[in-house]
Parts: sequence; structure tokens; C-alpha cells
Amino acid sequence: MSAGLHTISSEDLERLVAAALETAGTSAPNASSVARALVAAEIDGQAGHGLSRVASYVAQVRVGKVDGRAVPTCERTRTATLAIDAAHGFAYPALDLAVAQLPAVARETGVAAAGLRRSHHAGALGLVAERLADAGLVTLMFANTPSAMAPYGGKRALFGTNPIAFAAPRRDGPPIVIDLALSEVARGKILAAAQKGEAIPAGWALDMDGRPTPDPKAALAGTLLPSGGAKGAALALMVELLAAAITGAHFASEASAFLDDKGPPPATGQLIIAIDGGALGAGDGLADRVAVLADAIEAESGARVPGARRHALRAEARRIGLRVTPRVIKEIEALVVA
Amino acid sequence: MSAGLHTISSEDLERLVAAALETAGTSAPNASSVARALVAAEIDGQAGHGLSRVASYVAQVRVGKVDGRAVPTCERTRTATLAIDAAHGFAYPALDLAVAQLPAVARETGVAAAGLRRSHHAGALGLVAERLADAGLVTLMFANTPSAMAPYGGKRALFGTNPIAFAAPRRDGPPIVIDLALSEVARGKILAAAQKGEAIPAGWALDMDGRPTPDPKAALAGTLLPSGGAKGAALALMVELLAAAITGAHFASEASAFLDDKGPPPATGQLIIAIDGGALGAGDGLADRVAVLADAIEAESGARVPGARRHALRAEARRIGLRVTPRVIKEIEALVVA
Repeated sequence: MSAGLHTISSEDLERLVAAALETAGTSAPNASSVARALVAAEIDGQAGHGLSRVASYVAQVRVGKVDGRAVPTCERTRTATLAIDAAHGFAYPALDLAVAQLPAVARETGVAAAGLRRSHHAGALGLVAERLADAGLVTLMFANTPSAMAPYGGKRALFGTNPIAFAAPRRDGPPIVIDLALSEVARGKILAAAQKGEAIPAGWALDMDGRPTPDPKAALAGTLLPSGGAKGAALALMVELLAAAITGAHFASEASAFLDDKGPPPATGQLIIAIDGGALGAGDGLADRVAVLADAIEAESGARVPGARRHALRAEARRIGLRVTPRVIKEIEALVVA
Repeated sequence: MSAGLHTISSEDLERLVAAALETAGTSAPNASSVARALVAAEIDGQAGHGLSRVASYVAQVRVGKVDGRAVPTCERTRTATLAIDAAHGFAYPALDLAVAQLPAVARETGVAAAGLRRSHHAGALGLVAERLADAGLVTLMFANTPSAMAPYGGKRALFGTNPIAFAAPRRDGPPIVIDLALSEVARGKILAAAQKGEAIPAGWALDMDGRPTPDPKAALAGTLLPSGGAKGAALALMVELLAAAITGAHFASEASAFLDDKGPPPATGQLIIAIDGGALGAGDGLADRVAVLADAIEAESGARVPGARRHALRAEARRIGLRVTPRVIKEIEALVVA
């Protein structure tokens, strides 16, 4: 254990996070769902979707920007489609509902989709896709987020960072999981540079006039740049349409922030497409073929299968617990008694 | 009309291309399907998927690498899924079958998917997605191609350039169409640099030892770099699994080239997912919402809706025909009498 860090079991940490959310007015099942998702992201090394969110989630429940007692509902609109209303609550209980409902539908129909509306920050998307891959389904997931990126050549932020996740079951191994935001970097990296007074590299962001800038403060008033230039911007547009236009959710430019307690609910959206891999030509061989490609990647010196690192992190968390700073624990504890 | 260029109507050009393919042993319906696809790509300014392919397609039919008389078959494996066998023929007749079958299925089930196996070069994917958007469906399409890119950090090409296409119907306007390969540039750009003896920019390619290279010849012996670095490589892996693992097709590293008449059929794959946008929350409002976002993009000075340029090109082709060099016409005519 490193000096200055507490270790805490994931169960204890989940209980603590859930207690903070319940104190603010979140129902017990919703608090438990949110706590599970945040702790899982923290374990996987995705701190931006982990404990760092607790304080702002609590604040949003307190003012009603997130309805902590929302009960998501699921309508089977057609044979293969689910329309899920997150009801201005947290995204995680609605995502849990999608994960619970999609496998039976996809096994029956071959492919199934769930659209989530009136939703919120979906956290580490890969965790959702992975659960469906664990149920044997090849899964695609798209989420929009509040304004972050401009269309290519423009200066007004019309798209979020708009993550894409994918997971596929792999024979004799964990699923392959891909989870990436379409911005070159997360806004948190620019915030960190601003706090340290450091310049940011070209390719990270534009200022409010749409010009490249090394100044993190100018960047925070401007837009994030997409990963992959015009292609990344086109994919961000695609995700905006898949996650928001199809689901009846707010576009990035219509959504309030995920990070503070100002304004109405963000009402963003998510789309999940789950495929029973056997139905489209591969038959029983799908998981074997996924393993063939994963093995070929692992045989390449210097390359790795995306998501591989998280298994080591999870094993460590199971063995010795999570390592967190005492300050983080104290801050969450303070929210419980508040 | 520019000096030195012929103009020819798209109908005459399609007849000429079809005649060249039939001379080589392609059935009339297959030749017509291929000719339509190549001429449509040429009109849209996608020359790499247009007339430049005719000679190599003809050569592949002659030696049986492509079965010019193949009849694709479609099996409805589940309520919402189609498994299409392109039967080692051209991709286009199999794609036509998918475009013909998917709308009725998707309207019934809300989402439908078609997997194509034993397929070949799928050309300009956006044209396929656009036809389904014209039928009212939001469409995602993925194709794998022969070896081009290495996993991030590696040097062996395990992925193709692996294009992604997307299209969505737009109220009072043409569909939004996105169509992009995941490599930073097409191999054709590196070939052109090699022919001119010019260096290539950093970020385009690696040599056979996985090192960045400005030498186009070393790059042609190595691998293309993904657009967007590690994220682009992860998306290429995702497309490889969606287009090939799911469909029972060859992976990039198992597939012969699309461009020459050497080896067995490439047997690559494609996956099409078609969504009835009304089924996932947006109801009747989908096309309106797509228009809202498209209008916001068009209102941004310097930005444009992806695919917008093609409408001007098509209008010009209808008005005055296509402008092609006399040499291109002569080369195709030579294939007819050969």
C-alpha cells in the first residue's frame, strides 16, 4: 500500500457512496445502482467516471436536477426495440433495465435495440457493453453528452464528446471491450493544465473563435477538438443522431451540464444495439473467431487487446481493495451526514 | 467542358461498364448492379470506388476470383436478422438484396440487421446507407477489407481500412450521409507519392518494422496508420469483428486483395443495421430532429453537413454527364472487345 492512501473494499465503498446519495434524497435501489457503476469505473481506472462524480451527483439530486427517486420505464415498442424513459433520473438504473431486458429480446429476434431518453451521464459505457457481452451478445453503444465539440470547420459546440462502446464475447477469455470518447482528450485534462498554468498541445482544443490555442483557459471557453479530425467530427455527428435524435433526447447543444447543479435536467440519450452473433452468419463460431483475432493481437509485440488492463485492476481491487486518498473518503463521508 | 475530357451520360457509362463485365463472364443482372454502383461512386467524386476498379474487376471475373454468375441468397435467420451469402460474387448484388429486404423487416421489428459473407469490395458504403435512409431508415454499415492496418503499437496488419457508413433521413432535405475509412489516408495516396517520388507526411504509414516512415515505398511494404491514433485502431478492430466475425467472413489478414486477380476469393464481410427511427423514442419526430441538427451545422460558417457536396456533383452529372478522360473510356471499350 502506498503511503498516504487508504485501502477500502469495493463493497464498503459502494455502501458509502450509496449512503451519500440516499442522504440527498435518492431512493435506495437507485443509490445502489449508481454506487455500483461509479465504483466499477473507479476500479477500472476510469477516475473521470468514478468517485470524482459523487459530489456533483449529490448536488444535482438535492436541487432536483436529477430525480433521485425516478423509476425508469421500458416499453417494447416493436418486436426488437425497447424505448426506455430514464425519467430525469440517473442513467444507471435505466441502463440496468436495458441490460436486464435486451438479452431475451436479442436471443429471440437476432438483433435488438434500446433507446434511452430523459437520461443523464452514462459513465463508463464499456461497463454496460461488457455486461451484455457476458450474456453472449455483441454490443454497440452510443451516448451523447453536453456541448463539447464543433462540427468540422465550425466554432459552435453542437456535439458532445459522444462516446462509443463495443463489446464482443471471446471464447476462453474475457470479452473484448472498446470504450472511447470522440474528443482528442477529456475536458478534465484541459482543466488540469489550466490549474497548473501549463500550455496545452496543438490538436486538443479551439478557442471561442474557432482558432487553435495553447491557452487552456481560452480552450475551456471554446471547443474540444475531435480525435481524427474531420472523421472524428463526422462520427460525433453520427453519435449525436443515434443517441439523441432516434431516442427523443436532447442534443448536446440543448443539454445542461452533467457536472453542476445548474439548469433543468440534461435529458441526454443513449442507444444500445445488442446482436446475437449466431444469427448473422457466424453461427456457433462467433466467440471462437473473436478469440482468433484477440490472440493475433496479443501475439504482436507492443500491441494489446483494448480493455485488457482492467482485468489486472479488478483482480487487485478484489485482493486488497481500492486505494484512495483519505481526502476522497472524508469528502464522501461529509456528504452522508450533511 | 474542360479541354481533353469526354462527357458521357451516366446511362451510357453504365452500359459500357456492364458490357465489359459481361464480356468477362459476368451475368447480365450482376453486371448491371456492379456498373450502377461504380458509376454512382464516380459521379459522387469517389474515384477510388469508381471507374478505376473496372479493369481489376474484369480480371478477377476472368480467373474466377470473383464468380460473375454468383446468385446471392438471403436467409431470414430470426425475426430481425438476415444472413446473406454473396457466394464469392461481387458485393453489389448481395448489397442490393439487403437493401431490398431490410426495409420491410425493420418496419416490422423496429431494428433489423443483415450480415454478408463470402463478399468482396463493397465500394462507396455511403451509397448503400443512403438508399436505406431514402426508405426512411437510420442505417449503420460496416465493412472489412484486406490487410492494411496494425493493432495500435504493433506492426502486422490485422485490420483493413474498415469503413463505417451512416445515414439518416432528414425532413425536407436529402439524408445526412457519413462514409469514412478508418485509415488516415487511402493506400492510393501513398501509391501516388511513390509514383511521383515524393515523401509522405508523418501520420500516414509505418514501415514493415512498425516505424514511422516518410518513404512511400517503405510504407507500401508496411501498414497504414489509423485516423485518430489508438482510438482509430480500436474502431478498426470493432469493424473487423462486426463485419467479419459476426458474419462468418474472412478477417483482413485472411483475405486476398480486392485489387488484383491473384489468390482465392477475398470472402470479406459487411454488416448493415437498419433502424426504424420511430421505434426508439423519437416517434414521428425523427426526420425533423435530424433537420434541426443539419440546419445548425449549416448555420456554422466554415462547417458543412457530411455528404452535402455529392448533390451538386449529381446534379451536374444529370445535366451534362460525367467528365472522363478519353483514355478511361478507351480502356473500358478495350475490355468489351477483348
